[in-house]
Amino acid sequence: VTSELRVGLLGRGTIGSAFARLLEERADGIAAATGRRPVLAGVLTRSEGDFEAILEGSDAIVELMGGLEPARDHVLRALRAGRHVVTANKQLLSQHGDELWAAAAEGRAQLRFEAAVAGVVPVVRVLQESLAGAHVERVHGIVNGTTNYILTEMARTGAPYEEALAQAQRLGYAEPDPSEDVDGRDAAAKMAILARLAFGTPVHLDQVPYEGIEHIAPDDLEYAREFGLGLKLLGTAERVDGGLSVRVYPVFLYPGHPLASVTGPFNAVTVESEAITEITMSGPGAGGPQTASAVLGDLVSVMTAQDSPRALTDDLEIVQDVSSAFYLHLEVADEPGVLAQVAQILGLQGASIKSVVQKGLGNEARLVMVMHPVAESKFFAALELISALDFLRAAPRAIRVIEEEFV
Amino acid sequence: VTSELRVGLLGRGTIGSAFARLLEERADGIAAATGRRPVLAGVLTRSEGDFEAILEGSDAIVELMGGLEPARDHVLRALRAGRHVVTANKQLLSQHGDELWAAAAEGRAQLRFEAAVAGVVPVVRVLQESLAGAHVERVHGIVNGTTNYILTEMARTGAPYEEALAQAQRLGYAEPDPSEDVDGRDAAAKMAILARLAFGTPVHLDQVPYEGIEHIAPDDLEYAREFGLGLKLLGTAERVDGGLSVRVYPVFLYPGHPLASVTGPFNAVTVESEAITEITMSGPGAGGPQTASAVLGDLVSVMTAQDSPRALTDDLEIVQDVSSAFYLHLEVADEPGVLAQVAQILGLQGASIKSVVQKGLGNEARLVMVMHPVAESKFFAALELISALDFLRAAPRAIRVIEEEFV
Repeated sequence: VTSELRVGLLGRGTIGSAFARLLEERADGIAAATGRRPVLAGVLTRSEGDFEAILEGSDAIVELMGGLEPARDHVLRALRAGRHVVTANKQLLSQHGDELWAAAAEGRAQLRFEAAVAGVVPVVRVLQESLAGAHVERVHGIVNGTTNYILTEMARTGAPYEEALAQAQRLGYAEPDPSEDVDGRDAAAKMAILARLAFGTPVHLDQVPYEGIEHIAPDDLEYAREFGLGLKLLGTAERVDGGLSVRVYPVFLYPGHPLASVTGPFNAVTVESEAITEITMSGPGAGGPQTASAVLGDLVSVMTAQDSPRALTDDLEIVQDVSSAFYLHLEVADEPGVLAQVAQILGLQGASIKSVVQKGLGNEARLVMVMHPVAESKFFAALELISALDFLRAAPRAIRVIEEEFV
Repeated sequence: VTSELRVGLLGRGTIGSAFARLLEERADGIAAATGRRPVLAGVLTRSEGDFEAILEGSDAIVELMGGLEPARDHVLRALRAGRHVVTANKQLLSQHGDELWAAAAEGRAQLRFEAAVAGVVPVVRVLQESLAGAHVERVHGIVNGTTNYILTEMARTGAPYEEALAQAQRLGYAEPDPSEDVDGRDAAAKMAILARLAFGTPVHLDQVPYEGIEHIAPDDLEYAREFGLGLKLLGTAERVDGGLSVRVYPVFLYPGHPLASVTGPFNAVTVESEAITEITMSGPGAGGPQTASAVLGDLVSVMTAQDSPRALTDDLEIVQDVSSAFYLHLEVADEPGVLAQVAQILGLQGASIKSVVQKGLGNEARLVMVMHPVAESKFFAALELISALDFLRAAPRAIRVIEEEFV
C-alpha cells in the first residue's frame, strides 16, 4: 500500500518548473523506495492559486518564490500549521532564521533547505547529520558558482572582470543583474546559514562582512601566479578565541588546498574538525535542474525523518577582527627609499613582509608583496597610512591569502 | 527533559576504543542537539561481556568486531529484536546484505553503516538521502586509502611497489598484513555496498571483479605520465546496457577528472546523474578517530530518523563484459614489423590504437600504447594472442584508462 505526500508548490519560475517536472518523473522511484508517493496538490504563482487552499490541501510546502515577502509569511504560516517546508530561499533563511526555526518547533514541522546553500553539494545534510557528533573547527566554502566561473576565466584568459562577466552572462552562469553574486552578498547569506548549522549558534546575514570581486584586476591574478597562488571568492566560518568569525572575501589560495582545484561554475565546501580532519564536497552550483534535484532530496527526507528540527546548542560571540595574511599591490613612484618607508609603516603595526617583488620602472613601478598573518584591523590601519604617502600613484590593492600550514 | 539512548558496543579494538572515547566526549553536545543522550550500556570483547545481556539492555548496537562470525549472528539477532544497528563491517554487508536488510525490515530497525565505505566521506548518507530522488548513472570511487597512498608515493618518488608499501606500513597507512587492501578485495566490498545503495539493486561481493596494485611497476607510472595520466585504484559502478557493472581495477585517469587530484591516504567518491551532473566528496580514509566519528554520526541519525530501511527498488542484471580503454606495455625484441603484427592482432579484435610510443633499443625495446575503448573480452582475447608472439620478452602489461570525454 502506498500513501501519498501532498506537495504544495509556491512559485513556478525556472526552478519551480524544473522541480514540478522532476517530481513527476521520479514519483514512482520515490514511492518504491519510501512507500510514499509525492504528488503535486497545488501551485501558487503570482497570478494563480490561493495560498490558504494550498496550505489546507498539502502535507508539505515547497517554497521556490524567492525574496523576503510574501515568502516569509507563507513559510511561517505553513510551519506553524505543522506543514513541513522545503525551501531554496537563502535570503529568507539568513535574515529570518530565528523566527523560522521557532515556527518549525512550534508546529513540530521540518524545515529543510539543502538547495539554499551550495547547489547539489549536500553540505546541509552532512553538517546536520553526519557531523552532528563532531566539533567543527572551520568551514571554507566556494558557494557562488557565478563568481567562481568569472575568476576561473580571468585567470585562464587574462581577461578583465567586465569581459569575463559578459561571458558568464552569455553562458547563463550569471544573471542579467549579477550584483548580489558579484558583490559577495549571495555568498554571505549562504555562509550565515552554514555557520548556524556547523556551530549550532545564531548567525544573521548582517554579522557577515563581505567583499565582492568587481575590483579584481587581471594583473592581481598575474602577479599572484608568480607566488603560486590562485584566486577564489571564499566564505569562511571558524572558531576564533572562543567566538565565531564568518566572512566572505576574495582570497588567494595555495595550490594544494582542497578548494584550489575547484574551477568553473562549481561550488565546494570543506569542513574541518579534529575528529574527521577534513571533508570536501564539490559539484555544480545552482542551475534549475540541480536545484530541483536538491529540493526533491529534501522532500524525500521529509518523508523518512522525524519532526525534530535541531535546536541551537550554543550562542557564540561573533568576532569581527581576525588575523589574515595579505597580498598587497602598490603602484609607486620609482624612487629610492619607497620600500623602506612602506616596510616601516607595516612593521609599526606588527605586519611583517614574507616576500616582495619589485616590478617595472618609472610610471610602471610596483611593489607586490605577501604579508605574514596579522590582525586585520592593524593591517588596515597600516594601509590607511600607506595610502597617504605621496609616492603612491594609485590606491593600494589588498587581497587576503591562505597559505599552506606546515603542521 | 533528556532521555537516554542505551548503546551496546561489540568490539573494543582500535576503532571500538576510539568510539567509546568520542561518545563520552560528545554526549553533551548530542543531547543538546537531539534531546537524547547516548550512553554506553555494555561492551562485548573477546574475553568479557555477555551478548544476551547487552542486547537486552540496549536500544542500539554498535558492531565494531569485524569479521563474518560472530558479527553476523549478533547483528541479525539485534535487528530482529528491533535494535538499531550501526556497523563498520564491509565484509559482512557485502556478503550478507540481503539477509541483513531482511532482518532490519522484520525488526523495524535501522541498519546504518557509513563507516563501512569511505572513512569520513559521507557517501552512504548522500546516496540514501540527498540522491534518493536522483537516477544515478555512475559511481566512481577511490575507497581504499592504503592503495591510494602507495600509488601516490610510487608516482611521486619513483619507488617500486614493495618500498612504497613498507613506507605505508611504517606510517600506519597499511596493516602488517595488507593483502585485502592491496589485492583490491577491500575496495570491491565497499563498491558492492555503494552499488546496492546507488542503484537500489542487490549486489554481492562475488559479483564484483577486482584487481590489486601489487603488479604495478614504476615504469608504468613513468610512461603514463608522458600520456598525461595518473594511476588510481578505482571502483566503478555504472549502468551498462540496462544492467549494472561493478568493478575495481587500477586505472589511469586523465588530469582533469575530479578524482585525479585525490592523493595520499584519502578516499573520494564521485556520483554522476543527469539531474545533478556530478558530486564529488573526499576526505581521509579510515583511521580510528575518523571511523569512530562516522559511527557516531550514524548513531545520531538513529535517534532522529524513522525506522524505515530503504527497500530495494530494482533488480538489475550484473554485466561482466564492459568496454574500456587500455594502456598496453609490451617489452619486445628490437626488430622490424613488430608494431605491425601487434596492431594487426588488436585490429582483428576491433581494438584500435590511439597513441603509441616506441622506447629503447635492443634488450630495452618497448612499445607503450593507449587504445581506444573496446569490449574488454575482445581486448583480452587479443592480449592472449599477443602474449604468444615470440618477439615478446615479457608478459604484456595492460592497465585500464579513463580519458576525458569531450561532450
